Amino acid sequence: MIARYSRPEMAAIWEEENKLSIWLKIEILACEGRHKLLGEIPARDLAVIRKRASFSVKRCREIEERTNHDVIAFLENVAEYVGKIPARHIHQGLTSSDLLDSTLAVQMRQSADILIRDVKDLRQAIARRAREFKRTPMMGRSHGVHAEPITFGLKMALMYDEFGRALDRLKTAREIASVGKISGAVGTHAHLDPRVEAYVCRQLDLRAAPVSTQIVQRDIHADFMSALAITAASIERWATEFRHLQRTEVLEAEEYFSAGQKGSSAMPHKRNPITGERLCGLARVIRGNLVATLENVALWHERDISHSSVERVTLPDSCILLDYMLSLLTRLVDRLKVYPENMQRNLARSKGLYHSQQVLLALTEKGLPRKEAYELVQQCAMAAWRDTGADGFKEHLLRHPRIPELFNQREINRLFDDSPHYRCVDYTFKKAGL
Amino acid sequence: MIARYSRPEMAAIWEEENKLSIWLKIEILACEGRHKLLGEIPARDLAVIRKRASFSVKRCREIEERTNHDVIAFLENVAEYVGKIPARHIHQGLTSSDLLDSTLAVQMRQSADILIRDVKDLRQAIARRAREFKRTPMMGRSHGVHAEPITFGLKMALMYDEFGRALDRLKTAREIASVGKISGAVGTHAHLDPRVEAYVCRQLDLRAAPVSTQIVQRDIHADFMSALAITAASIERWATEFRHLQRTEVLEAEEYFSAGQKGSSAMPHKRNPITGERLCGLARVIRGNLVATLENVALWHERDISHSSVERVTLPDSCILLDYMLSLLTRLVDRLKVYPENMQRNLARSKGLYHSQQVLLALTEKGLPRKEAYELVQQCAMAAWRDTGADGFKEHLLRHPRIPELFNQREINRLFDDSPHYRCVDYTFKKAGL
Amino acid sequence: MIARYSRPEMAAIWEEENKLSIWLKIEILACEGRHKLLGEIPARDLAVIRKRASFSVKRCREIEERTNHDVIAFLENVAEYVGKIPARHIHQGLTSSDLLDSTLAVQMRQSADILIRDVKDLRQAIARRAREFKRTPMMGRSHGVHAEPITFGLKMALMYDEFGRALDRLKTAREIASVGKISGAVGTHAHLDPRVEAYVCRQLDLRAAPVSTQIVQRDIHADFMSALAITAASIERWATEFRHLQRTEVLEAEEYFSAGQKGSSAMPHKRNPITGERLCGLARVIRGNLVATLENVALWHERDISHSSVERVTLPDSCILLDYMLSLLTRLVDRLKVYPENMQRNLARSKGLYHSQQVLLALTEKGLPRKEAYELVQQCAMAAWRDTGADGFKEHLLRHPRIPELFNQREINRLFDDSPHYRCVDYTFKKAGL
Amino acid sequence: MIARYSRPEMAAIWEEENKLSIWLKIEILACEGRHKLLGEIPARDLAVIRKRASFSVKRCREIEERTNHDVIAFLENVAEYVGKIPARHIHQGLTSSDLLDSTLAVQMRQSADILIRDVKDLRQAIARRAREFKRTPMMGRSHGVHAEPITFGLKMALMYDEFGRALDRLKTAREIASVGKISGAVGTHAHLDPRVEAYVCRQLDLRAAPVSTQIVQRDIHADFMSALAITAASIERWATEFRHLQRTEVLEAEEYFSAGQKGSSAMPHKRNPITGERLCGLARVIRGNLVATLENVALWHERDISHSSVERVTLPDSCILLDYMLSLLTRLVDRLKVYPENMQRNLARSKGLYHSQQVLLALTEKGLPRKEAYELVQQCAMAAWRDTGADGFKEHLLRHPRIPELFNQREINRLFDDSPHYRCVDYTFKKAGL
Repeated sequence: MIARYSRPEMAAIWEEENKLSIWLKIEILACEGRHKLLGEIPARDLAVIRKRASFSVKRCREIEERTNHDVIAFLENVAEYVGKIPARHIHQGLTSSDLLDSTLAVQMRQSADILIRDVKDLRQAIARRAREFKRTPMMGRSHGVHAEPITFGLKMALMYDEFGRALDRLKTAREIASVGKISGAVGTHAHLDPRVEAYVCRQLDLRAAPVSTQIVQRDIHADFMSALAITAASIERWATEFRHLQRTEVLEAEEYFSAGQKGSSAMPHKRNPITGERLCGLARVIRGNLVATLENVALWHERDISHSSVERVTLPDSCILLDYMLSLLTRLVDRLKVYPENMQRNLARSKGLYHSQQVLLALTEKGLPRKEAYELVQQCAMAAWRDTGADGFKEHLLRHPRIPELFNQREINRLFDDSPHYRCVDYTFKKAGL
Repeated sequence: MIARYSRPEMAAIWEEENKLSIWLKIEILACEGRHKLLGEIPARDLAVIRKRASFSVKRCREIEERTNHDVIAFLENVAEYVGKIPARHIHQGLTSSDLLDSTLAVQMRQSADILIRDVKDLRQAIARRAREFKRTPMMGRSHGVHAEPITFGLKMALMYDEFGRALDRLKTAREIASVGKISGAVGTHAHLDPRVEAYVCRQLDLRAAPVSTQIVQRDIHADFMSALAITAASIERWATEFRHLQRTEVLEAEEYFSAGQKGSSAMPHKRNPITGERLCGLARVIRGNLVATLENVALWHERDISHSSVERVTLPDSCILLDYMLSLLTRLVDRLKVYPENMQRNLARSKGLYHSQQVLLALTEKGLPRKEAYELVQQCAMAAWRDTGADGFKEHLLRHPRIPELFNQREINRLFDDSPHYRCVDYTFKKAGL
Repeated sequence: MIARYSRPEMAAIWEEENKLSIWLKIEILACEGRHKLLGEIPARDLAVIRKRASFSVKRCREIEERTNHDVIAFLENVAEYVGKIPARHIHQGLTSSDLLDSTLAVQMRQSADILIRDVKDLRQAIARRAREFKRTPMMGRSHGVHAEPITFGLKMALMYDEFGRALDRLKTAREIASVGKISGAVGTHAHLDPRVEAYVCRQLDLRAAPVSTQIVQRDIHADFMSALAITAASIERWATEFRHLQRTEVLEAEEYFSAGQKGSSAMPHKRNPITGERLCGLARVIRGNLVATLENVALWHERDISHSSVERVTLPDSCILLDYMLSLLTRLVDRLKVYPENMQRNLARSKGLYHSQQVLLALTEKGLPRKEAYELVQQCAMAAWRDTGADGFKEHLLRHPRIPELFNQREINRLFDDSPHYRCVDYTFKKAGL
Repeated sequence: MIARYSRPEMAAIWEEENKLSIWLKIEILACEGRHKLLGEIPARDLAVIRKRASFSVKRCREIEERTNHDVIAFLENVAEYVGKIPARHIHQGLTSSDLLDSTLAVQMRQSADILIRDVKDLRQAIARRAREFKRTPMMGRSHGVHAEPITFGLKMALMYDEFGRALDRLKTAREIASVGKISGAVGTHAHLDPRVEAYVCRQLDLRAAPVSTQIVQRDIHADFMSALAITAASIERWATEFRHLQRTEVLEAEEYFSAGQKGSSAMPHKRNPITGERLCGLARVIRGNLVATLENVALWHERDISHSSVERVTLPDSCILLDYMLSLLTRLVDRLKVYPENMQRNLARSKGLYHSQQVLLALTEKGLPRKEAYELVQQCAMAAWRDTGADGFKEHLLRHPRIPELFNQREINRLFDDSPHYRCVDYTFKKAGL
């Protein structure tokens, strides 16, 4: 992934250095396991391995130029550190994918740990803003059209709840992906006792795959990627929300805009929701990566390696992007400028039409058939909407002959009371765990 | 979905009749809830509603022609059965999506129930074949190239394990999707006490969404679809396996071919793995549907309805296809013709090369550095492979000057012993729960 | 595809009746070709075939139940009409896919013809509205934020131009897809002279594939589907535009809303852009279908049939959906309610900030370095934007000490002149072919 | 894209250096155009600009740290070279996207040029191998099952033809993508005469977009990406072919394997089709990128910038990958080891069953109804297939009572003549342009 969209901690997980460190750890653990459980490696040799085993990314690359095989290059390099005699023990009974796939599992788990922390940070930011604007009224919109009032706090509570699901999803993905294997070339443990697999995986905090081939099966990685892509889609959903709120005509919220920043090379007055837009774009990239990863499931027989080139690109890229996106969204939420007065202004624009449902219900309670009540309300609503003057829904409704027949003044006031829309705010916050 | 790929039980879940039945159930439950919890509907009216409430798919369609709105058409139709006076109570305080989304949740759960049962049936079939061929040797292949022996039972155990994950995945998806909402137009419960939502959802065996807008948030449906798509990918993986095994040159297994069936209009001798091929194709269709469904997450504000046209197509189609695919795969596995003699023949083709790893390990145990051992083995392996005569790896190895120096006859026999490849079969079956 | 999203003419192309008609046509043409070019079928038999050859969809289905092969069923049914003796000649030297793939090409071409006509109709509607509002000013928006003025006519001209590309794309796709083949089981013409292929294809207005296997290669169908998906994405782009314009706060245009229509079961005042939303959703479905179809390219050897189940679903569905979408968009454009007065109101909201670029340019022409000019303009723009009173950009600018130094009154007036924004309308219309 | 899958020439197109060079070129051209056509910039200033205008990637990055806007940073940097006074003229009337989108068009065209050359190189390699094995018989396979013979040359001719379509597709994409724009912030040419746009685009060998907004419309980029993805799918199709041919049981062709190369860290004898597998994987990545790019079409109003983060990743990555893939496939084809003797061996395995169609046709010519003939042939074919001895289809057929009745010896010989399968090789090569 390009530097622009990478954060160092996550990027480091996917760098050669980290990968080879885990490889080395696995090789040493396998030696330990063989020594402890099978009595196979002399204690002296094991001590040498433990002490001296090391690698150099640069040297591995040099050797790979010649061997055209990364694991063999690595083993030759490790042997250079350890010495020929003890080095014989290393990788005995293992196949390359024992290293690769167990390591990939560790990398996915390490990534998941960061992503989980990211989501927790995000939720903290959301929670703070939710409480801050718990009772700040704003218009609720369906189809982009005014519907009935909500509060900005409720909107944030929804977001908080959605990222609660993201948290669960990433935790589940972390568990699903934590599967290693040391079962040899076709998964039969032909050359190494399965107790060694159990030992190594336990030390790495992985489950050993109950059955494996040369590799861990790729439905597991598809599950992992799908958790990333759906979480990215939730980010997109909320980035879209904030982009909408920043539209000039709406302007109920705005991304933070620093003093020195320039919005447009041509139009100096512009302040654009570019963070939200970037997030929307990157969600598409991860979605595309999911498509590629899903096609990796159907490999041939005991493995074909077509998944490898995909995973070299899509797994790091998606982890790095999602980490970046989560941090960006956290900052966006954290510093979001919220304009309650504009929310009020937009509410007012609606000319009281959002009371129509209340009126509809009151009419049916008064005994009007639903269909008739609906038509009465719609007729007054449309008239108010077309009215270019000051008269709103209330005024037009009161002019309708049936209304004074049916309602007294106190009842009419109640028809246009805003409070029912906000009465469940506490209830909802509690259900959301806020 | 076209009839060719539909099974009646699953198709029925997604038919108008079932959808409207659930709508009706929800409307009645909402009335009950309001009566019981809020004291809002006279007992007499509720009794009438319970007794008479009904609908006709045909009549609903007629009314929809006029109203251009399906829920309003439904309500008018129900009112025709119930009578105007009691009908006033129906749908009071609800919004269309309260019906639609809670119903969709019920339909997803009903579908998941069938899919879960399908996977269980499939696993039973797999388990039977796994045990049947537990110790039937065959070649294990990586990259489509002979690697080391496995047994056909181990292959089936792997499949059994993979569909165990599918089972877990579908169960999780079932839980995630079981979310309803009766929270009104923008999720504020403005016109209906949330206790009614809690009541209705509980009766439908759904959780009530802690926070909602006009709708249940679409990351939930994306989770559901992703479970279907990944399960479909696992089916594709195994369909690909069986297609490979049926290749003329391999022919270790074959789809059942009935007496009357015709394989080709032009070539009467052909028996083609068309079931496997069909499964591979349909997995692509579901994968495409996932892509569409993932784009539904980022809706506008308190909802936009762009997800609706997608879900009308992709949710039923994917559930119906996956049910069909699972049943097809079960039948394929159940009736699969397995040819152990051909497996034996293909093993023999390998000229003993699959012993190379054993030899390599033995050489390093004898003290050869790994690199030198590797080159010795590779050299003999290549010579055996190029040899068009009867001499295999063993013969070529024995000709190498170092071998007699290092190994006595008993040791040489052990180098070419097949049993290590099969020694963990019991262990693996146990770990797979077979 | 479900009836809700199907139009009869396009649906008919993909029905069994049409498919079998083309099959029959091909079989008869092949007989004709063999008679004319190879002298192989007695004139009398050919006459009988021409006269009597027919089929019944129902009867074909009955036979297929037994044979489990659709082409064989069809041939048996045709033989029932033609009689055994002449029927011998039919399908001689052909393979099923000679029929299937040539027929699919005809169906794609027939579909493309409808889609091309649809796009032409759409462009006519767009052209009419473009001319109608050629000089109607409205705000241009980037990032959803006010930028500089355009006219609604220019917006429509852009749309007209985009669907001009759609037209070219569909015409190209039509040509690419018009490829048939009668080359037998593996494409070698082993049993039928290639002159017959040339004859049949010419009669069907298809090119004969220069090289084929059992089938026509699937990159061709991917090209076709990609043309559909990109066209659908253009529809989505414009549906999104109209949805935005209908937002309550913007309300510069609105989908036609009939007198009897009901917008919401709960909120009688609502008028929602449901057509636009539906179009956005359906674009996703076609996009998903493209993903599935792209995976059909990599078939095995001289063909595997995994593409077939995909194409049975995605090709008809996508053609039917796109036809429906184009017609829906045409109607949307045709009847769109446009509100120039609201466009004017929104322009006014911008407080003259859209003149900032003009001022910036004038300042640099007066000799200010770009950076300094930019900062001056940005400062005044921000002040105007924050000003809750009546003062706009002009007022704030005039207060800046540098302005009276640099500009006389006439120059200042020119800075705030709207006409430059509209001066190229004629030019652009001409370039767009309007 | 990671270095492993990048080639320097293509990578350079997408590096900062090249991008900024094109930016600079456009800025200078715009100044020239304004001078020549509008008489707006003093000749002396223009001369200075032409002479001194330059940039430094490093310095631009430094400035961007502060401005948070890449184009503004670039302009400040260029001004440092040119000097404040002449620098005033630069970018006058342009908007950032005038630079960005015109530059992107140039980059896409440059990339297309390389890809077109790559495909031509590939086709040369294919043509050479096609001619080399023009008449080398091999088994044709449908469904992975033996069908009828072809030649390896015919297979290569098919590949040659498919990449002929790829060539056309990339050429078309090159033309479609060659669209620039210098039309300002919302496409109205408000601050710069469109003659300058025409001039600049002509000099860059681009068409000027007839209508534009702030940007060039994204259906154009979707067209471009779709050409890449479909071409990648064709690569996948052929990589799959070669992987199949290298299966141990088939082994009719094999990727070149150098002397020092190691196929497996555990199994020294293995030679795996890793190039083909890598190509299959990378095709998935590009396919995923297409999905992301298709979602860029539906931007908001006169532009939103969500496409930008996608294109920063998917456009360079896909161009770089496709270039790499084409070169890899060229090398694969060029050095492919082909084993005609194994092709012969596999043909023989079929026991003559591939003559069944010939026999079927001959039987119907002798007057047997098609159905009866089919059953006779199928019966003998099945018997031969089940026969574990030496008797093939011919032997079983001759035992059938009807055969000697119907055919004399010469006719029988003709039934089992291979030559019809190869008789159209010349014809097909000619049609393929070989």
